Amino acid sequence: MAATTGDPGLSKLQFAPFSSALDVGFWHELTQKKLNEYRLDEAPKDIKGYYYNGDSAGLPARLTLEFSAFDMSAPTPARCCPAVGTLYNTNTLESFKTADKKLLLEQAANEIWESIKSGAALENPVLLNKFLLLTFADLKKYHFYYWFCYPALCLPESLPLIQGPVGLDQRFSLKQIQALECAYDNLCQTEGVTALPYFLIKYDENTVLVSLLKCYSDFFQGQRTKITIGVYDPCNLAQYPGWPLRNFLVLAAHRWSSSFQSVEVLCFRDRTMQGARDVAHSIIFEVKLPEMAFSPDCPKAVGWEKNQKGGMGPRMVNLSECMDPKRLAESSVDLNLKLMCWRLVPTLDLDKVVSVKCLLLGAGTLGCNVARTLMGWGVRHITFVDNAKISYSNPVRQPLYEFEDCLAGGKPKALAAADRLQKIFPGVNARGFNMSIPMPGHPVNFSSVTLEQARKDVEQLEQLIENHDVIFLLMDTRESRWLPAVIAASKRKLVINAALGFDTFVVMRHGLKKPKQQGAGDLYPNHPVASADLLGSSLFANIPGYKLGCYFCNDVVAPGDSTRDRTLDQQCTVSRPGLAMIAGALAVELMVSVLQHPEGGYAIASSSDDRMNEPPTSLGLVPHQVLDHYEREGFNFLAKVFNSSHSFLEDLTGLTLLHQETQAAEIWDMSDDETF
Amino acid sequence: MAATTGDPGLSKLQFAPFSSALDVGFWHELTQKKLNEYRLDEAPKDIKGYYYNGDSAGLPARLTLEFSAFDMSAPTPARCCPAVGTLYNTNTLESFKTADKKLLLEQAANEIWESIKSGAALENPVLLNKFLLLTFADLKKYHFYYWFCYPALCLPESLPLIQGPVGLDQRFSLKQIQALECAYDNLCQTEGVTALPYFLIKYDENTVLVSLLKCYSDFFQGQRTKITIGVYDPCNLAQYPGWPLRNFLVLAAHRWSSSFQSVEVLCFRDRTMQGARDVAHSIIFEVKLPEMAFSPDCPKAVGWEKNQKGGMGPRMVNLSECMDPKRLAESSVDLNLKLMCWRLVPTLDLDKVVSVKCLLLGAGTLGCNVARTLMGWGVRHITFVDNAKISYSNPVRQPLYEFEDCLAGGKPKALAAADRLQKIFPGVNARGFNMSIPMPGHPVNFSSVTLEQARKDVEQLEQLIENHDVIFLLMDTRESRWLPAVIAASKRKLVINAALGFDTFVVMRHGLKKPKQQGAGDLYPNHPVASADLLGSSLFANIPGYKLGCYFCNDVVAPGDSTRDRTLDQQCTVSRPGLAMIAGALAVELMVSVLQHPEGGYAIASSSDDRMNEPPTSLGLVPHQVLDHYEREGFNFLAKVFNSSHSFLEDLTGLTLLHQETQAAEIWDMSDDETF
Repeated sequence: MAATTGDPGLSKLQFAPFSSALDVGFWHELTQKKLNEYRLDEAPKDIKGYYYNGDSAGLPARLTLEFSAFDMSAPTPARCCPAVGTLYNTNTLESFKTADKKLLLEQAANEIWESIKSGAALENPVLLNKFLLLTFADLKKYHFYYWFCYPALCLPESLPLIQGPVGLDQRFSLKQIQALECAYDNLCQTEGVTALPYFLIKYDENTVLVSLLKCYSDFFQGQRTKITIGVYDPCNLAQYPGWPLRNFLVLAAHRWSSSFQSVEVLCFRDRTMQGARDVAHSIIFEVKLPEMAFSPDCPKAVGWEKNQKGGMGPRMVNLSECMDPKRLAESSVDLNLKLMCWRLVPTLDLDKVVSVKCLLLGAGTLGCNVARTLMGWGVRHITFVDNAKISYSNPVRQPLYEFEDCLAGGKPKALAAADRLQKIFPGVNARGFNMSIPMPGHPVNFSSVTLEQARKDVEQLEQLIENHDVIFLLMDTRESRWLPAVIAASKRKLVINAALGFDTFVVMRHGLKKPKQQGAGDLYPNHPVASADLLGSSLFANIPGYKLGCYFCNDVVAPGDSTRDRTLDQQCTVSRPGLAMIAGALAVELMVSVLQHPEGGYAIASSSDDRMNEPPTSLGLVPHQVLDHYEREGFNFLAKVFNSSHSFLEDLTGLTLLHQETQAAEIWDMSDDETF
Repeated sequence: MAATTGDPGLSKLQFAPFSSALDVGFWHELTQKKLNEYRLDEAPKDIKGYYYNGDSAGLPARLTLEFSAFDMSAPTPARCCPAVGTLYNTNTLESFKTADKKLLLEQAANEIWESIKSGAALENPVLLNKFLLLTFADLKKYHFYYWFCYPALCLPESLPLIQGPVGLDQRFSLKQIQALECAYDNLCQTEGVTALPYFLIKYDENTVLVSLLKCYSDFFQGQRTKITIGVYDPCNLAQYPGWPLRNFLVLAAHRWSSSFQSVEVLCFRDRTMQGARDVAHSIIFEVKLPEMAFSPDCPKAVGWEKNQKGGMGPRMVNLSECMDPKRLAESSVDLNLKLMCWRLVPTLDLDKVVSVKCLLLGAGTLGCNVARTLMGWGVRHITFVDNAKISYSNPVRQPLYEFEDCLAGGKPKALAAADRLQKIFPGVNARGFNMSIPMPGHPVNFSSVTLEQARKDVEQLEQLIENHDVIFLLMDTRESRWLPAVIAASKRKLVINAALGFDTFVVMRHGLKKPKQQGAGDLYPNHPVASADLLGSSLFANIPGYKLGCYFCNDVVAPGDSTRDRTLDQQCTVSRPGLAMIAGALAVELMVSVLQHPEGGYAIASSSDDRMNEPPTSLGLVPHQVLDHYEREGFNFLAKVFNSSHSFLEDLTGLTLLHQETQAAEIWDMSDDETF
C-alpha cells in the first residue's frame, strides 16, 4: 500500500500498486526484436500493456505485457484497459544498472502532467495510463533483468476520506446497479473500446448515467458540491482502489476541483461469478480534493516497482528454467548467428543459410567436419551418404563418432552421423543413407543383380540430389565424385567439393550451368564449353559462375579405379590431422559466401590474382561433354562408364586425342631442337 | 595326408603336413614391423619358427610363429626345433593374390636341393626346415591374409614300406628306449641345441648310439644293407611321420642310398605323460629308398598349405574380433599417424608429438577444436581448464558437447570435455579442472576469502603449467591470457596462442626465453628486451625462438577487464562458425611443426616475407618487464595486477610513457605542418 500523508483527523486514502505481469511471450518477443530489429539500438520503444478488472478476489492488480506488447495496433483483449508504455532496453547490464531512473520517472510524469494541463488527457484518458519498462536481456543465459514503473503523480497532500470505501451493493439498489452496467456498456460500445478507464457518473434512484471526461461541463451542467467519477479498477481489495485512480484524481483536482468540494469515486469492478455478471463488489467512497487548479509545476511522482524482496530494485526472470530445453537449444543456436547481424554483417541474410538443404556425400573426416560447421551456421537440413562402417581409427579424426560406435564391427557411418547430429542439436533434420555411389571403372555388370543394384543406387542418388540445394563432395576417392558431379550439374545444384592431400587440399565450387531453357540453340546447350564469348573474351579476371568448371575440368586423366592395388598409405587419406578441419570449415564458409551472393551459384569468381587473367584453355572445360550424354542416355550411359576403364571416358571427352596430340607436339619440339 | 604314388605291391609311405600356427603375437609384431620398419618395402625378410614334438595325441603337427619370429637371434623354446623362413609381405591385396607362388616354391626347393648337393645340409640340417610365408596385412581392418608353405622335395617315386610303422615300444626294450633318450639328450647338450631335427642311430640290445649327419661315414663305418635314421617328429599319428622327414629322406636318398638298400626311420616323439618322460610312442618303420645320387636336377616340390576349406588358397585371420577393443583403438589410432612416415615424411618423429603433455586453457570453441586435432595427432595427455558450464548454444560450435550436457544448468566444460575425450578414445589421459584464471583488472581482494581463492588458483595454475609441456591459450578474453602467459614464460614452456575475430584470427607461438642459467648478467636476464644484439642486427628475416615476443607484445593497451559493460555481441565471440576449426587446427599444426624442429621452441621464425626484415621496435617487446617482477615478487605482484586498472601494468611496462610521448610527437608533427 502506498500511503499519502496529511490531515490526521480523517483516515487517508491509500492505493494498491500494480504488479507487473510480464508474460513469457513478452520476453520471447523482446528476444526476437532485440536479435533481429533493435540489435544495438538503445532508443526508447513504444510498447503497450493492459489491465483487467474481472479477477477473482485475492489476485493482485496486474499490468500485463504479452507478446503483443510490441504491436501498438494490436487489439486490446476484451474487457481490458490499455496502457501505453516506453521500453528502455539496454545493451549491457552495466547500463541497466546505471540508468537514471529518477530522470526517466520525471520525464514520464511530466508528459502525464502536460496531458492533464493541455486537456489531452480529457480527450484520451489512456494518456494517464503510462508505464515505463527498463530491461536488460541476457540472451546468452535467458536471464531478463527488468524494472517496471507506473508513474503516479502525487497530490500535494494526502486525501482525507469523507466517507470510507463500501461495497457498491451497500449504496446502490439492484436497479441502480443494472442501470450502471447498462450505461457503461453502451458508452463502451458507442466509443468502440473494450473498456473505459475513466468516466463520469450521474445517478438518482431510477437512473444511472455515465459520460466521457471531455463532456464534463455538459454532463454536470454547472457547479455542484459533489461529483461522482468512475474508474475501471484492476484492484480486488475491499478497502483500497487500484493505482490508475491516482493520476485521474490529480486530473480531477487540477481541472475540476474549483467547482466542488468533494468527489465521490466509484471503483468499477466487473467480474463473472458462477455464470452471472457481478459488479456489486465494486467499491465507492468520497474524498476531499485539494485545489490544484493554479499550480503550474509538475507534481512529484512515484511508481518504480518494488522487487520480490520488497526493496527498491530490479527483478530478474530466468527463462532458461521454464523453457523446453529443445526449444531453448534452438533459440540459443540462432543467437550467435544473429549476433553477427548486429554490428559486423548487418546485411547477412541468415535465412538463406539456415534454410539450405545440404547433401553430404561422404561421412568420413571431411563429412564430419563439414556437418559440424554447417551446424555452427544453423543449417537444419543435413543428409549423409556413405557405405562404410566406423572403424577404430575413425573417432579421433572424424568428430561425429566415438569409441562405442566402433564395437561389433562398427555402425554404418551415414546413420551414426545423422544420429550424432540429433544428439548435438535436437532441432536438426538429419538423415543418413547407407549406400554406395557407383563409380567409373568399378564394374557393376557381373550379374544382373548387381546391375539392378547399381541402377537403384543411381536412382536414389538422383532423387537425393534433386531434393537438396547444395551437394558436398567429401569422398576419399576421385572417381566416386564423378557421378554426383554429373547429376548435380544436370540438375543445376550447387556443388562444393573438398579433397585432401598430405599437407595440401582443394576446396572449390563447381560451376553452375545456365538454366536448361536458356541457350537452347547451342551445340551443347547445358554447359558453356562451346560458347564463343568465353574464348573470344580478352579479360578473364572475373569469370561468371556458369562458366566455371568442375573437379574434373583440370585433369588430363579420366576417373577410374584408384583404390585397386593401392598400398595402405595410398588407400587411407594420409594427411596432417588438422587439414580436414581446415578444409571442411572452408568448404562450408565457401558455400555460405556463395549463398550470400545475390546471384548464388552464378556468382562471378572474382580475383585479383594475375593468373586469373590467362584465358582458360579448352582443356579446362573438356569433361563437360559427359553431361550431354548423361542427359540423353541416362543409366545406359552410366553403366558403360562404370564398367569401362579410363579409355571410355577419355575417348568420349577427347582426352585420348589430346594425349596423342601432346605426344605428337613433343616429338615435333624435339625435331625443332635438333635442327639447331 | 599327402600321398606319393608308386609300386602298388607294398603300402606306400605318407606324410602328415604341417599346420601353420601363427600366433596373435606374430601378427602384432608384423604390424609393428610393417608400420615402423618395412613400410613400403616388399623385399623378402628372414623369419624363424619352430615345431615341438611333445604334443598330446590328437593335435596336428604345427609350425609355430610367434612375436619372436622376426628376431633371428631369438632363442628357440626348449625341446623345439627351429625352422627358418622367408616372409613375403606384400603392400597390397592385389600383389598378394598375384604373387607367383609356383616360382617362390621352386626357389625355396632349389635352395634346399643345393644345400643337399653341397653338403651344407649335413653340416646344418636346419637348412632342410625351410618355410615360406606370403602375407598381406590390412592394418586398417586388422585382417591378415596369409599363405604358408613348407617346401618338401619329392622323391621320383613313392616309397614302399618294407616294414609298416609300429610303436617304438614294440621294437625296443625299455633299456634300449632309456639308452636312446640318454644318447639323444647328450648329443643335444654337446651340440648346444634345444633339439636335433635329424640324426643317425646305431643300436643293439644293450646300447643305442646317435650321431650327427655330418658324421655319417665315421658313424656307420662302411656299407651296410640298412641304416637307421632319426627324425625329431612333430606328428602325433601312429601310422604316419610328419612333414620334416621328407627332405631328410631326399637327402638320404641323394647322399647315401648307393651304400644301402633300405632305411629304417625312427620318428622320435618325446612327451611328458603324467609327470614321466615318454618316448615309447615314437614310431619306427623301414622303407626302400630310390637311388638319387647322380640326379643333378632339383626334384619337384610341394608344400603350399591348404586353407580351412580344404582347397588350395590363402587363409585370413580377422584379429579385430579377438583383440581388446580398447587396445584395437589404440593401434588403429597409431596407424594413420605411422602411415605418414611411410612415404610422405619419413623423418617425422612421432614420439615427440604423441608424448607431449598439453594444457588447454579454455574448453570452448577453440579448446574443443584444439583437443580434437591433438587427438588426431595421437597426443595422449590432454588437460582442460575452464570455469564455464555448457550452455545450449555451445554444442553446435564446440565439438566435445552435446545437447544432454546442457540440461540442468549445464555440466562444467572442463570436466565434460575430458569425459568426452575418453569416450572418443579410451586410451587418452584426459583431465579437467573447473577453475578460474585470475585476470588483471578483475579485483580479487574484496574479502580475504576471495584473495585466498585467487592465491590457490594461481598456485594451481602454476602447478598445472609446470606439469605440462605445451600451454594453449584458448580463452575468450584478452586479459585471461595474461597470467598463464607470464607463468609459462617463467617456466620456459612452449605457449601456443589462438584468438578469434569475426573473420580474422591469430594463431601464434610465444617466444621461448633462454634457459634461466644463461645470460644471468643481463639487466633483464630472462627475456631479450635489452639485448643489444637484437637492436644491432641488420637482418631480421630469421628471428630465433628466444627473441620472439608474446600475445601482448604488440599491444599498446595493457590487459584489463574487457567484459564489463560489453554488449551481447561483444561478450560472445561472434565469428564465422568455420573459423574456430581453422584456427584450432592451425594451432595444433603449429605446435607439431615446432616440436619437429630440432630446437623445439627455440626454432627460428624464418620467413621469406619482406616485412620480417624490418627491425622490431622496442614497443614489440615491452611487456616482458612483467616477467622479472613476477619472478621476484610472485603472488604479491599478481594481486596488484588483478586489482588494478590498466594503469598499473601500463606504468610498469612503460606504456604510459609511450602514450605520453606519442601524444607529444603528434603535437610536434602538427606544428611542423603549420610552418609550411
